[in-house]
Order: sequence, then structure tokens, then C-alpha cells
Amino acid sequence: MKKLTTPYYLIDETLLEKNLKIIQRIREISGAKSVLALKCFSTWGVFGLMQQYLDGTTSSSLYEARLGREKFGKEVHAYSVAFSKKDIESIKNFADKVIFNSISQLMNYYDDVRTMKLGLRVNPGISYSHFDLADPARKYSRLGASDQAEIIKAAPLLSGIMFHFNCENDDFKNLSTALDLIGQNYGDLLEKMEWVSLGGGLFFTKAGYPIELFCEKIKNFSEKFGVQVYLEPGEAVITGCAELVTTVLDMMHNEIDIAIIDASVKPTC
Amino acid sequence: MKKLTTPYYLIDETLLEKNLKIIQRIREISGAKSVLALKCFSTWGVFGLMQQYLDGTTSSSLYEARLGREKFGKEVHAYSVAFSKKDIESIKNFADKVIFNSISQLMNYYDDVRTMKLGLRVNPGISYSHFDLADPARKYSRLGASDQAEIIKAAPLLSGIMFHFNCENDDFKNLSTALDLIGQNYGDLLEKMEWVSLGGGLFFTKAGYPIELFCEKIKNFSEKFGVQVYLEPGEAVITGCAELVTTVLDMMHNEIDIAIIDASVKPTC
Repeated sequence: MKKLTTPYYLIDETLLEKNLKIIQRIREISGAKSVLALKCFSTWGVFGLMQQYLDGTTSSSLYEARLGREKFGKEVHAYSVAFSKKDIESIKNFADKVIFNSISQLMNYYDDVRTMKLGLRVNPGISYSHFDLADPARKYSRLGASDQAEIIKAAPLLSGIMFHFNCENDDFKNLSTALDLIGQNYGDLLEKMEWVSLGGGLFFTKAGYPIELFCEKIKNFSEKFGVQVYLEPGEAVITGCAELVTTVLDMMHNEIDIAIIDASVKPTC
Repeated sequence: MKKLTTPYYLIDETLLEKNLKIIQRIREISGAKSVLALKCFSTWGVFGLMQQYLDGTTSSSLYEARLGREKFGKEVHAYSVAFSKKDIESIKNFADKVIFNSISQLMNYYDDVRTMKLGLRVNPGISYSHFDLADPARKYSRLGASDQAEIIKAAPLLSGIMFHFNCENDDFKNLSTALDLIGQNYGDLLEKMEWVSLGGGLFFTKAGYPIELFCEKIKNFSEKFGVQVYLEPGEAVITGCAELVTTVLDMMHNEIDIAIIDASVKPTC
């Protein structure tokens, strides 16, 4: 291998492929499609490998959507906590689906994107917080629409719904209970939809994760409401597959030995 | 004024000049020179104004040193928590002074930079932590040399010393006590030096800061040890002079009204 200049991330394709094969297996058993969350991982040097196993990408900004279209291909989901008018005019060039964060954004831009597949992010609400759901469900969250009556009214404009309510969740039981609650609370809405994205933050590539139970749960959810399920893995795809390679520039001693490397996660003082 | 695209920082030159005039006054009364900490502020659009009042820049990496040389001019101090061999070869093109973080770095590169003015960052030590000194004095700190015997041995290679031990410090009494302790502990060392940098983090542009007392203290310190004092203001130069101008892209309601703007300090989920 060519000697590289540090610092760099060394990605092990063998390990990456192992994760990707788990995702492929999930698709085969459960029917759920997986789109890579570019916010989490956007190193396009390995997109060639990834696109063999994933169905496309999901993005949280215009430039991520463009990256997905130009470097990954396949399906491009475009979400943003708020699109500007300019974003919306450009997004048509890159995305297959546009997922809005609010009903007001959907209404504002509906005429611009009505020919595309439109989705709405729905906040499953603070009542799930005792299941240790991640931040998006916290009080005053700005992430997703929360007024159920308004959401149902907007349903005819939508082909899908996105719930993103996990982060590093390796607890299948927690997910299972949350999905049951979502089914109970949003069943009528889901039945009107073609697809539902369950977001990212599910750690199904972790050793010991009950893949079969997970797939069964997803398949049942999908069949019960007649929706294509999407997953948006980010960390689950890449975790354990990369190392940060650095050079030790100096060794200091201040009670303990301290190595100074040519990389940092925070600025120094 | 031309209509700008948000988000942008709007810098008020009148307010900035007010801060700069305080720094000029400090130089006139105390004799202390001030170099802008580029790590804190590097918007070179206003360097033309700033260079009329400041003596140059200080940097924490090779590229900052280059920015200081090419866009600000005057004196360029170059510090790094660890220079690589390549950094050191380039730094000669940009810097007037090179300030090392450790004696091992000084020794490693002494032959490369012996014709330049060399400084050493000294960690004033954890014994000052009860004066609420900032992070650099914490246990196991990697910021600065801490072995006094070794520092004294290295003194013949140095023309100056840098102590950086404050952060948003608006408490003159605290600074005064810390300077007395530094004088007591490092007096022998300081007397061998041409210059000493007291670092950044002093909030002397805050309303009500006792500028006269501060100047007197600095002047006495400078005269007592026969050293040119440098200050490295960053935040003190720009605080209160700029606003982040944004556009509201969406209004949501989730118990409270929430404005979504086209800027953020952290990524969203």
C-alpha cells in the first residue's frame, strides 16, 4: 500500500462488507429498504461497494442530496429541517423523495414539488419518552409535525411518512414497543401511505442483535399497514470498520506520559 | 447596503474600533504589545482596520501563521501544540517568533529555526487552580512545559516565554494574584528573557474593567523583569461587535412557537 500522509481514516472494506451483508439480509427477510444517512457517513471512496447493498441515500441538506445523486446514485431521499425556496428549486434536480419537517413547509412548497413523491416527518411525541427514545421526542422538539389532526388533513398530499426517533438503539424490545405504539397512534395515517421511513439510529449490526426478530417485526408492520418500510442506517453501517491513523508528533510528561498526535476532536487552548 | 444572502455575520466597525482603541490605550500606558489570536477571529475583511491598532497576530497552526503573514502583516507569532517537521520547514517563511509547547519540540527543531526568535510555552501549573485559572492548568495538561529545572536549562535557547492561563477572565484581582505568583515562581527565568506573552483570555474590553490598574500591573511586571510584555487578545477584540444575521425559514408550534432559521450551532437529528 502507498504510504499515506496522516491523519487519515483507514476503512476496512472486509469489515464494512460484513455490515452491508447484514443490511442485505434484512432487506431479503423483512422487505425493508435501506438508504445510507449521508449526515453520518459521506466518504464516497467506498460508495461503489456500498451501493451494491444499499438502496440509496438519505440527506439532511441540499448538498447532501446532491452528493447522493452524483456519487451514490439509486434512490435519493431529501429531508431538511427547513428548506429555503432556493433549496426547493434545486432539490428537484437531485431527489426522488422530498421529506418535509412541518406541514407549513409542505404547504409552502407543495406547488413546486407536487410531481415528486412527498413525505412528512412526524414527531411521535413526548409520550414515548419513558421508553428512553432519543432527543427528537423531547419537549418543544422542532423535529417533525406533532398535530395529529393537521397531519391527517395533509395526508392526501403525501405518499409517505418519516419517523426518526432512535439513536444508537441496540435494544430490540424498546424498538418493538415503540413500533406497536406508533402503529396504534398512526395506523389510520399509515394505511393511506405507500411508504414509511423508520429513520436511523437502530444498531442492528451490533453483535448479538436479534436480526430475525427484528425482520419479523418490520415485515409484520409493513404488511399490517400496506407500506414499504425504509431504514436509514448511518452509524450501523460503518461502526467498527474504520480507524483514525495518526502520527505522534511529541511526547510530553506531566505526571503521566502524554502523546501529542496530528489529529484532534476539539480545538486546543 | 447591498442585500446580502443570509446567514452572515454583520460586523460593526464602529464598535470594533472602540475595542481596538482600548487595546491601543493599553499599549500606550503599559507598553504591552497586542497580537490578535487568529484561532478566535480570522475574518480578514476587517484586518485593514485591526492592523492600525494591533501589533500583529498569533497563531496555533501553520495555516494561521500564513494567514497572519499574508493578510495581516506586522509581527507573526507561531505557536502549535506540536509542529511536524514539515510545519517547521514552512513556518520559517511566515513567522517572526516560533513558540514551542514542549522542550522536546524545542530540542528537535532547534537547528532548523535557531536564527529566529524562539519561545517556550510554560504551564504555570496546577497549584494555581484554586484561583479558578482556565483549563491549561488542569491535571495532566499537555499545554506547556512544566518541569522547572528543565525549563531553566533550556533558557539559553530562548528569547521569550508564553503563559496562557486565562479564558474570559474579567476579574482583575484574580489576574493580579496570578501574575504575582508567576513572578515569584518564574522570576529567574523571566530575567533571562527579552519578552513574555501572557496569552489571551483577558476580558479587558468589558465595561467597567479597571484598565488603569491593569496597565500599571503589566507595566510593573514588565519593568521588574526587564521583558517586553505581549497580550494575545481574541474574544476581547471582537466581543459585542458582531451579529449573526439569519432568515426564518419556517415557524412551527409544539407547545411553544419555534422559529427555524438558516443557521445552526450544532447538527440536527
